[in-house]
Amino acid sequence: MPRPADTSGLRVDALHNRNRILEAAREAFATLGLGVPMAAIARRAGVGVATLYRRFPTRESLITEVFADQMEACVSVVDEALADPDPWHGFCTVIEKVCAMQAADRGFTAAFLTAFPDAVDHERERVRAERGFAELTRRAKDAGRLRADFEPADLVLLLMANSGIVAESAEEALMASRRLVAYLLRSFQADPPGRADPLPPAPPFGLRHMYGLSPARSAG
Amino acid sequence: MPRPADTSGLRVDALHNRNRILEAAREAFATLGLGVPMAAIARRAGVGVATLYRRFPTRESLITEVFADQMEACVSVVDEALADPDPWHGFCTVIEKVCAMQAADRGFTAAFLTAFPDAVDHERERVRAERGFAELTRRAKDAGRLRADFEPADLVLLLMANSGIVAESAEEALMASRRLVAYLLRSFQADPPGRADPLPPAPPFGLRHMYGLSPARSAG
Repeated sequence: MPRPADTSGLRVDALHNRNRILEAAREAFATLGLGVPMAAIARRAGVGVATLYRRFPTRESLITEVFADQMEACVSVVDEALADPDPWHGFCTVIEKVCAMQAADRGFTAAFLTAFPDAVDHERERVRAERGFAELTRRAKDAGRLRADFEPADLVLLLMANSGIVAESAEEALMASRRLVAYLLRSFQADPPGRADPLPPAPPFGLRHMYGLSPARSAG
Repeated sequence: MPRPADTSGLRVDALHNRNRILEAAREAFATLGLGVPMAAIARRAGVGVATLYRRFPTRESLITEVFADQMEACVSVVDEALADPDPWHGFCTVIEKVCAMQAADRGFTAAFLTAFPDAVDHERERVRAERGFAELTRRAKDAGRLRADFEPADLVLLLMANSGIVAESAEEALMASRRLVAYLLRSFQADPPGRADPLPPAPPFGLRHMYGLSPARSAG
């Protein structure tokens, strides 16, 4: 799969630097958010700022590369779920796994929800994950397990809600996320026959709709 | 009810300034968050910075006063619900109203979730709202409508989830919040007899537990 930065022409020491930068950036984004200064990433990686900028000319290119793995993981989760013979189980598994990834890694959500102009491959994988999830949704509805008025916007709503969790440790965040997801999955289940309980209308949210929103915001 | 800033001794023009400051601050906190510079609030209010600081020596004292009304509204919502003969209806109404307030006003949540050292009255009202809600919870469980394993931490979880909503307008935020709350209230309902569906454990969250967390955080 093509990557924003092609590594095939790199010498061994350059590749070593590159991997150290990516590891430092991944950790810095996850703990400090996407706004962490480039100089701080270079320091954590033990490389000069010039080296960092030579490899990754923009913060966006670094973010794209750092999160390419996570995006691939998302796509894999959806692909696995599509192979699940039980569509409701597949649907729940995707939501549980993606929310756990989101809870474990603060930077992940921002990358997932934000568009960067040069994040072409990132975008392609998001579209693939989105289409796969739409197919899962259709199957779970056809199986009578997912409520008929579940909309794609509800996935965005769930990811936003999950991103609102603030905890003192990654373990607590994960615990809180599991509880929230368990509640929401219960409520996504189809009503028993003859007991329809309509919901208020879904907001006009799509992953695409969220591109314009700033990844940095204050609480509240 | 005692207020952080006693207004009884103020002359008419001073009171007029005070109200303009509070109105400007309320609007600035709601739209820009609690971190908005004091000078920007003074400018919006059309008063000098010195006047602002004479009236409100610290940002905390201004926040406390601005949100005293909202805290009172919260307490009223809980008090009204306690007078509702249907405990499940009362429980749902509190959650719907508080989440709508939270969705309509970004500053509100931060004030609600954050402790300020001199926000004594604010704190007292929060404790009162918290105790009232605990009583509502007990009654809704006794009536067999609220699931027995609902915990106070779930209210915190719901407020966090609701605060994760990011929308392009207050109307969209409110629409999204209503949908999220409708989903969560469905899932808070007691399981039908003989169909118990246990939840993962609740996180160790309390409103008190959240005091140590910073009100300013980045998305994700």
